[in-house]
Formats: sequence, structure tokens, C-alpha cells
Amino acid sequence: MPRKIEVLIVGTGAVGSFYSGKLAQAGARVSALCRSDFDIVKERGITVKSINGDFHFKPAEVVNNIADYQAEPDYIIVATKALPEINTADIISEKVCSNTSIVMLQNGINIEDEVYNRFPENEVISGIAFICATRTAPALIEHIDYGRLIIGKYPRGSSENAEKLANLFLISGINCKVDDNIIMSRWKKLLWNAPFNPISVLGGGIDTKTIIESESSLKLVRDIMEEVIAIAEKSGYSISSENIQKMIDETIRMTPYKTSMLNDFENRRPMEVEAILGNTIRLAENYDLHVPCLKSIYALLSLVNEQNQKRYRNSI
Amino acid sequence: MPRKIEVLIVGTGAVGSFYSGKLAQAGARVSALCRSDFDIVKERGITVKSINGDFHFKPAEVVNNIADYQAEPDYIIVATKALPEINTADIISEKVCSNTSIVMLQNGINIEDEVYNRFPENEVISGIAFICATRTAPALIEHIDYGRLIIGKYPRGSSENAEKLANLFLISGINCKVDDNIIMSRWKKLLWNAPFNPISVLGGGIDTKTIIESESSLKLVRDIMEEVIAIAEKSGYSISSENIQKMIDETIRMTPYKTSMLNDFENRRPMEVEAILGNTIRLAENYDLHVPCLKSIYALLSLVNEQNQKRYRNSI
Repeated sequence: MPRKIEVLIVGTGAVGSFYSGKLAQAGARVSALCRSDFDIVKERGITVKSINGDFHFKPAEVVNNIADYQAEPDYIIVATKALPEINTADIISEKVCSNTSIVMLQNGINIEDEVYNRFPENEVISGIAFICATRTAPALIEHIDYGRLIIGKYPRGSSENAEKLANLFLISGINCKVDDNIIMSRWKKLLWNAPFNPISVLGGGIDTKTIIESESSLKLVRDIMEEVIAIAEKSGYSISSENIQKMIDETIRMTPYKTSMLNDFENRRPMEVEAILGNTIRLAENYDLHVPCLKSIYALLSLVNEQNQKRYRNSI
Repeated sequence: MPRKIEVLIVGTGAVGSFYSGKLAQAGARVSALCRSDFDIVKERGITVKSINGDFHFKPAEVVNNIADYQAEPDYIIVATKALPEINTADIISEKVCSNTSIVMLQNGINIEDEVYNRFPENEVISGIAFICATRTAPALIEHIDYGRLIIGKYPRGSSENAEKLANLFLISGINCKVDDNIIMSRWKKLLWNAPFNPISVLGGGIDTKTIIESESSLKLVRDIMEEVIAIAEKSGYSISSENIQKMIDETIRMTPYKTSMLNDFENRRPMEVEAILGNTIRLAENYDLHVPCLKSIYALLSLVNEQNQKRYRNSI
């Protein structure tokens, strides 16, 4: 019997819990590094209420400090939120072994470089999750809709390790594609995230339907998308502007959806303002691109994020 | 003894109550048209707690329908909020007499045309109030700071009636200037209102100091001011861009200030989104001017205004 594939998941939020549970179902030995939910995950494991069937997942090891982890991981899957205050490279460095692939399963753009530059001998795999799932309580995840994955070697190219990981996901029933040009997919996801996530918060806590029904806010969605396309173009990723209408049409057909950023806001959790907007704007500045709509919502969302965190700190 | 100057104030919010009380102190016969506060104003009059000395003011007549008003006004002072759902011309039309000057004491830009076009035989006076005052309860006003007025014939020029009104204010102790180019003053006030009012709401309920301390939001303030200056320029009002730094410096020196729009938002009252942003953007569109920052905050603020009103309606 061949040795089991060894996976360490970093972060047991909705995304980390769901996908690592699936890998365990497919036969990998999956362990979890978690902080706030450590005690309960260690004691009870993680329960996932899923539209495709509920399941329970007990990690092989549960640690709150990576030094306690006993194995040599084939994959470290980073599924924490992409926040400036989380230094992923520091967190994982002790267990990045020669054969370890680091999978960055996070939102936003340019979220791989910190790890990519720190571990030049290791393969970095970038991953994008298309899923509606929420951690409704510690160690309890609700999977509401979707679930497919796209992964690929960072910054581009083919990868046996990505293929192997995709195979595991496929065995578990997850639609996982390997993409040799993964950052193109990341830009396309950003094309949706950059307008809809911030507007859902700044517009007063609204779902996708409400955003699209207002003429001036639909115009803002389009303008932001145009700016994202211009930055992607300069970065070497050419996205046709036909994608804008296509994405809006898809959003019209979607069940009205509350974005993950709005969920974070309402639960007083930090929002991924930098990963989604800050990094994007910094690229625009490198290219001397004028992106007034992105800058407007970035300035406002940064204020809201700060106020929201301040109120949270004051309430605990 | 000459006949007393006859004034009808429309709207007994903070601005209407404060300034009409002052005109009564100066010897005018002042009556009030009010809706929600009708009973209490009729019974008790209006109390103003003012940094310059508290005072009480009992209007000569208090009516909730203009048809009940018995006099022929020399001045009808419109001091309601500038909201699309309030049709001022309809409200006052029955008592606009041949000698009546209509004073538009409201925020925003292009708020005079409705009345100006409807009563072409009457003089329209545009007025700008620089005051921090709040209606803290029905018929109770708190005057916290400032208080000066600028008034002038709309759209421009000199006016005996404006001089006469200004004199009354001066007698009552109000610093009131007559400006032959009043719309220029309106644009200058908008230069401050257009960024600070919306950002105070969209930024999560913050004061002027918080807006200015964040680098990206201060940049947004500047960008919005640049756009306002460009629209004013096309409208024939040339404001030097040195005014931007001057206004920011003044705001830095100010006691941290909570804008009136934020007050409205927090009290679930409709915000003057159209008077301050909508009218401004429509001018820009007439001139084919590109104003992405104004349009971004307009789209967001419209969403917030709608949500805020919806929640209010659901809560009553």
C-alpha cells in the first residue's frame, strides 16, 4: 500500500474545513493547524452541513502551533483569509519540507508572492474556490452552493503535484480543474469580487440583486470591472471586455447572494480589503494607470474596515 | 409705525427654527408652516438652546396647511431639507403674493430652479447657512456652533429685498452678508459638502478628523473637490484649486465635526443625496465631464439612503 498523501490545512474556516474534509474522504492523511477553534476541533472534529450531503471530518492531527505537527506534508494548503496581519510564510516556515507544495487557496490578487519569494525551492500552487460556504459556529460549516476549484502552478505552467492534488479532489467528488495559466483565472474571479464584495458592504449591507437593480450602482460595477481589466491587461492577462456583460448576466441569473465580505463585515471580522482592492491598486500605480473608481471604494472600505474592527475591539 | 415685515418659514427643523426665531427677535412678524411638529409648536412655540444664549420663539401663526395662513408674506423662507419628494413650489404656491420674495435656505446646488421657474414674477433669494445646529426633539433646537449667513438674489445681481432681510438678521445679531454672486458661494460650500458629507456616512459613521487622517480618504476628498471645481468652472463659476488645500487646512483646525448627513443617516432620515451629489452629477453630464469619484460615491450613497429608509419604514 503506498504511503498516504500528507496534507496540512492552515485555517479551519469554511473553505479550509470543507476542502480538507473532502481530501480526507479521498484518502489523504489530513491534519489541521487552527487557532481560535483549536479546542473544539481537536475534541470533536469538524461538521459540514452540505447541500451535497452532510459529513464529519476528524483531522489526523490538530495543532495550534505548527511545531507540534509530526508529519512532513506533501501539501500545505493555506486557507486563512488573506489579511496583511497574517504572515503566512512565518506561520508555515517550520514545516515546509523539500517535497512540500504550498497551496494558496485564498481570494484576491498577488497573494502568492510572499510565500513564493520566501520558499524559492518549493512549488507554489495557486487555488481559487468557487463556493458559497459559511462557518456558522466553531467547527461547524454550512455549504450552501457551488464548490468547484481551479488550481495551477504559480505563476504559470504545468505541475505534477497540482495534477495529483486535483485527482484527489476529483475522487472526493469536487470538480477541480488544473489551469496552466492560473493567474488569468484569478483575474477573472477578481473581476467579479472587486465590484460586488465592496459594494455589498458600502451600499448598506445588500445582496447581489439589489446592487444590480440600481442603475447607478450597476454602472459603478461596470466601471470597476473596466478598471480591473485595464490593470490585468498591463499585467499580461488580457481579458475581453465582453466578460463584463457575461458576468453581469450570470449575476442576474444567480440566486440573490450575500458576499463573503458582507458576511465578514456583519460578523465584525476583518475584510480582505488589501487582497482584493489594495493589491490591485498598487499594481495600477506601478503601471501609472488611472483607476478612480477602485481608489474611491478602496478609501471608503478601508475606513469602514477600521471602524468595524475598532467597534469589535471596544465590544470585547 | 411702519407695518411689520411679514415672514413665513417653511419647515421648523434646526435651520428654519433658528433663523426665523432670530427674525422675530429683530421685530418681524414670523409665522411657521410645519408638519410633524405642528401640535407642539402651536402649543409651546420653539426653544433654541444656543451657544450665544438660549431663546424661545412663538410664531405669530402656526399652520400645517398653507391655506390656513392669514397674511401676505414679504418673505417665504424655505428651510426644509432639499429632497426630491418635497415639491416646494406646490407647497407654497397658494401664498406667493406679488410682493413675496422666496428665500431658498437649503443645501446643495441647483435647488432654486423649481421655484424660480414656477414663479417668474417673484424674486428668488438664495441663502446659505453656515451653522452647526440640530433639532434634538420636536420644537427643541440645539445651536452648537457658527451661524453666519450669505444671501443673494438668484441667479445673481443686487436686490433691495435681500438687503432688507440681511438688515433684519444683522439687527438680531446674525452675521449676514449679501452676495451679488450667490451661486459662487454655493459652489464653494458644495466643495466641502460633496466630499465630507458622503464620506462621513460611507466611511462607517465617522467625523471630519477621521476622514482627514486616512491618506487614501484624504486623497478621495481632494479628487472629489477637483471634480466639483471642474463642474463649477463649466457652469461659469471659476474656483481656484488653491481652495482645496485651504479648505482641508481649515478642516484640520476644526473641532472634529459630525456632518449633518451623518446625523440624518443615524436618525434614519432621508439624506440630501440629490441636492448635493445628484444635481452636481447631472450638470457634469450636461457638460460631458468625466467625474468618476462623484459618481462612485453617488451610486453608493443612493443605495445606503434607500436601505436606510427601507429599514426605517419597516421599523414603524
